[in-house]
Amino acid sequence: MTGTVHGVGLGPGAADLMSVRADRLVRGTRHIAYFRKAGRMGQARKIVDGMLRADVVEIPMDYPVTTEIPLEDPRYAATLSGFYEEVTAPLRALAEAGEDVVVLAEGDPFFYGSFMHLYTRLAPFVPVRIVPGITGMTAAWAATGAPITWGDDVLTVAPATLPEAALTARIAGTDALVVMKIGQNLDKLKRAVELAGRMGDAWLVEYAAMAGERVRKLAEVEAAPYFSIALIHGQGRRP
Amino acid sequence: MTGTVHGVGLGPGAADLMSVRADRLVRGTRHIAYFRKAGRMGQARKIVDGMLRADVVEIPMDYPVTTEIPLEDPRYAATLSGFYEEVTAPLRALAEAGEDVVVLAEGDPFFYGSFMHLYTRLAPFVPVRIVPGITGMTAAWAATGAPITWGDDVLTVAPATLPEAALTARIAGTDALVVMKIGQNLDKLKRAVELAGRMGDAWLVEYAAMAGERVRKLAEVEAAPYFSIALIHGQGRRP
Repeated sequence: MTGTVHGVGLGPGAADLMSVRADRLVRGTRHIAYFRKAGRMGQARKIVDGMLRADVVEIPMDYPVTTEIPLEDPRYAATLSGFYEEVTAPLRALAEAGEDVVVLAEGDPFFYGSFMHLYTRLAPFVPVRIVPGITGMTAAWAATGAPITWGDDVLTVAPATLPEAALTARIAGTDALVVMKIGQNLDKLKRAVELAGRMGDAWLVEYAAMAGERVRKLAEVEAAPYFSIALIHGQGRRP
Repeated sequence: MTGTVHGVGLGPGAADLMSVRADRLVRGTRHIAYFRKAGRMGQARKIVDGMLRADVVEIPMDYPVTTEIPLEDPRYAATLSGFYEEVTAPLRALAEAGEDVVVLAEGDPFFYGSFMHLYTRLAPFVPVRIVPGITGMTAAWAATGAPITWGDDVLTVAPATLPEAALTARIAGTDALVVMKIGQNLDKLKRAVELAGRMGDAWLVEYAAMAGERVRKLAEVEAAPYFSIALIHGQGRRP
């Protein structure tokens, strides 16, 4: 009997915004794997703290690089590819030995994020099941206290890693907007929003659904942590 | 003491894809309100079936129109606006009398959907708290067994109610795509996907995370139920 690898979406950060299905899997699993920055506990592991079995076996997967090598450098892809191969092997071996494994994924497992790189390497060989999660952007627009899309609104989700001109065009050409992956790209994002003529409507949400949640007008923000999302609300039909 | 109106996201349809927070609120509430088509149980109420307190007071809100009046007809907005005013009054009265009320919202309360029309009418007067939910599109891409966005992919979410030319431009101009509100607009959507040159990559997911979940190539689909979502996966960077 082959075991199953469960890719479990944890949602945006509050433990009780995990789904009931995710909650049961996390509490019941013998084997739990999660990504983290070397030397840190990691956000995924933090979310499930206090929920794990006493006899749980933890499988931390330490990222070899985060910001040290630029994304465009071929060494970045090569290093990460080797890393994903390496961390996939023990998960596959556990499943082949008949054990189930839970792999934690912040937000939703299939919406950006690192779990997808394990998924493509595991799914040809062992059963992998996905538990969808509440995305960080969903918690971000909840935090602003205003709906993101109405009626026929188009929503664009764009990463702030895009070139400035492309980002500006995306921001100008949509009703509702979500921007992810801000961090070092904050100044570029602010210029793009300004050029698109939408700075007055733009918000930045930090740490949505976590301790430290904060909502500000984007224009007022000088530095953004990794867990931040910019957004502009749609203004569509509302009877 | 004023009560609180909780706008509770139910997620895509499976009861155990509700968040732990939503599950607790639904099981504990004395007053529960939900939209439905007159004469039907309604999808939201179905999801929570078997979870409610024995002494629960149910507040069904029967839509006065669904497809009988075209969206563009001014009577549509007038009828719905009157309806939302009418159903808001008892919810506000309950909160003002110190009672908490749970209002069910399929998917996420702030992502399209009807709850938002109550929210704008309630929030100026009584406390309203939002419990975010897993969106239907998140369950749809999980059902396809492939991630929706990678690396720097842009995701566009567009309603099939858009004019054909606008829809075609959106489909041609994005990496990853989600189309909602298909129903009667299926033929128009198929023409737009074809014109955008992307029919080979387009999927239709019906009843994601519900009984009857089905995934097909969009090209093969001749009729789509209300609960269906079209999508095209992004092909971004993957080390």
